[in-house]
Amino acid sequence: MEKFSASEHPHLRYNPLRDDWVVVSPHRAKRPWQGQVEKKAIDDVPRHDPKNPLCPRVTRPSGQVNPDYKNTFIFDNDFPALLPGGPDPPKNDDPLFQAAPAHGNCRVICFHPYSDLTLPLMDVGDIKIVIDTWAAEMINLGKTNQWVQIFENRGAVMGCSNPHPHCQVWASSFLPNEPSVKHRTQREFKEKYGKPMLVDYLEKELSKKEERVLLESSHWVWLVPYWATWPFETMLLPRRHVLRLQDLTDDEKSDLAQMMKNLLTIYDNLFEVSFPYSMGWHGAPTGTYLEEDCSHWQLHALFYPPLLRSATVKKFMVGYEMLASSQRDMTAEQAADRLKALPRVHYKHKTD
Amino acid sequence: MEKFSASEHPHLRYNPLRDDWVVVSPHRAKRPWQGQVEKKAIDDVPRHDPKNPLCPRVTRPSGQVNPDYKNTFIFDNDFPALLPGGPDPPKNDDPLFQAAPAHGNCRVICFHPYSDLTLPLMDVGDIKIVIDTWAAEMINLGKTNQWVQIFENRGAVMGCSNPHPHCQVWASSFLPNEPSVKHRTQREFKEKYGKPMLVDYLEKELSKKEERVLLESSHWVWLVPYWATWPFETMLLPRRHVLRLQDLTDDEKSDLAQMMKNLLTIYDNLFEVSFPYSMGWHGAPTGTYLEEDCSHWQLHALFYPPLLRSATVKKFMVGYEMLASSQRDMTAEQAADRLKALPRVHYKHKTD
Ligand SMILES: O=P(O)(O)O[C@H]1O[C@H](CO)[C@@H](O)[C@H](O)[C@H]1O
Ligand SMILES: O=P(O)(O)O[C@H]1O[C@H](CO)[C@@H](O)[C@H](O)[C@H]1O
Repeated sequence: MEKFSASEHPHLRYNPLRDDWVVVSPHRAKRPWQGQVEKKAIDDVPRHDPKNPLCPRVTRPSGQVNPDYKNTFIFDNDFPALLPGGPDPPKNDDPLFQAAPAHGNCRVICFHPYSDLTLPLMDVGDIKIVIDTWAAEMINLGKTNQWVQIFENRGAVMGCSNPHPHCQVWASSFLPNEPSVKHRTQREFKEKYGKPMLVDYLEKELSKKEERVLLESSHWVWLVPYWATWPFETMLLPRRHVLRLQDLTDDEKSDLAQMMKNLLTIYDNLFEVSFPYSMGWHGAPTGTYLEEDCSHWQLHALFYPPLLRSATVKKFMVGYEMLASSQRDMTAEQAADRLKALPRVHYKHKTD
Repeated sequence: MEKFSASEHPHLRYNPLRDDWVVVSPHRAKRPWQGQVEKKAIDDVPRHDPKNPLCPRVTRPSGQVNPDYKNTFIFDNDFPALLPGGPDPPKNDDPLFQAAPAHGNCRVICFHPYSDLTLPLMDVGDIKIVIDTWAAEMINLGKTNQWVQIFENRGAVMGCSNPHPHCQVWASSFLPNEPSVKHRTQREFKEKYGKPMLVDYLEKELSKKEERVLLESSHWVWLVPYWATWPFETMLLPRRHVLRLQDLTDDEKSDLAQMMKNLLTIYDNLFEVSFPYSMGWHGAPTGTYLEEDCSHWQLHALFYPPLLRSATVKKFMVGYEMLASSQRDMTAEQAADRLKALPRVHYKHKTD
């Protein structure tokens, strides 16, 4: 019988963090595409738009006027999904009609006063300020919230409703679904194997001759996880065992700033477009969890980019994926090879 | 303190089938939208396109010529995600690098020879033939596969790569993630409460004075589940306890054909557009499960439509949703009210 080859034969891969499986169909990228083509991301955002509510000195819909900010600028989302106060739903004994309280804070962080300056185009020093701001928000909002989710939706195709480079922080009185599963899986792994899952995982990836490792710095490693779901999904991990973003040393944060600039440059270079994605940080939960043993957690950032074939053709996670299992059209290793082959200089700074 | 009102105050709702929670932020629909606007679904697909590989008498990329079919037409997907044969991945003892065999069949079912005839515009008799075809495929592919997923991606915005009305059947040697969770949750519910979860759920919904019930027929009920995630997500349930699609009586299938025509007409009328969605059937698993007690299952169809505000503005399930929890911008009851208020005659057949 024919020998198994991951890059030829459909198979399943186990995601130990989510405790589920992804269907890998490497041969499927060959099919022709007659489906939806996205608009190419706008590459000529004006540096300042007096009508954009995220720009310095502009009046927001709430009536508040933005300061003349020089690096990051944080404010409470004018249309928050979660509110700090408000009444709780009544208790219901019926297991099929369960409601629970949801409180929290939603904040917006503008990265920089310039609308045309995405993270990979920013100075490393300015990226470092963004990271410091994240750490401060984690401490501040983590005092009263069980979970603080920092995330960036970049690009209209990822539902980003404003082209000015920014991220969001949604902090909640409850542990959301994803971290709640990862809290369990990482705890079970540590109980069984005596090591934090992602610490063990990183060691193994580093020993595997860089099959899926994309970039290494003194404190960080960027890789395509073995169980990646989105076509060019990646994970960013500290070398050291770190529970939360706010536990990073200043050195680690400076190194992270450089690492982020490097990796986001590679992403932009893949299709020579401001690469759309949702990214975010996962670390040990906060609030009352700050008093608990969370040593099974390892801090990591996740990048979920939708593009598959080109700057305008994305992977649709629809029918089968919504109803059955996620499915990918190339292997993690094939994606890693593509990313590793790309130039390290941003395509906008190319001199040719 | 202010009294809790589901249509005013953020809260969580529990999804007992998926064992997770959805964040409901009813006030959030009020925020302005400056994000991505989709192309309106094409409303003038030609009845026959000699270049469309799904049309009668056309030569497909594989070289095969489609028959001059008169109602449904089934064939093996020319670019399948799963293949019946092929080698299995080798065993690996490392819990972080687990691969598993994935075999199966991927088939395409064209609903009708006409490309401009979507399900709600078809004759009830022709819809009945589609349902009979589904049941036959369930029996046929279910013999050797643990799961047979019937699903339709409708509309380019849902990744549908061909406008000719069709659905797909992906049958697999394994139980995918979603049904595998639902297998557990429904079994646990039946063990604890002595009744199949969705049988109990339907009874309760019918007694709740139609808060979320949209349409009723002699054999079927269409409703917005209490825990709906997508803006206009709905569920279609038989009144009787039925394990699998192939167990439906002929009467139940005829009634289903009429029900599907009615409900899809209401969907199309919401924004006067061929309403995009992913839909699919979930029932008891097949293959070796055919010999097991699966009485905790209840057959149901799920409709996941992406549109939120209009024919061109969808809900993005991105950053927070991918990294934390799904979030919706109006309640299930608000969505139900919107759907219940719509005319029952298809907007294309309006006489005014
Ligand atoms: O097979 P199609 O219709 O070309 O493809 C569509 O449905 C599949 C199953 O949900 C997805 O994997 C694809 O991403 C999507 O574009
Ligand atoms: O808050 P924004 O950027 O307007 O909204 C975007 O991100 C949110 C959080 O992932 C999503 O709930 C919205 O659907 C999306 O459009």
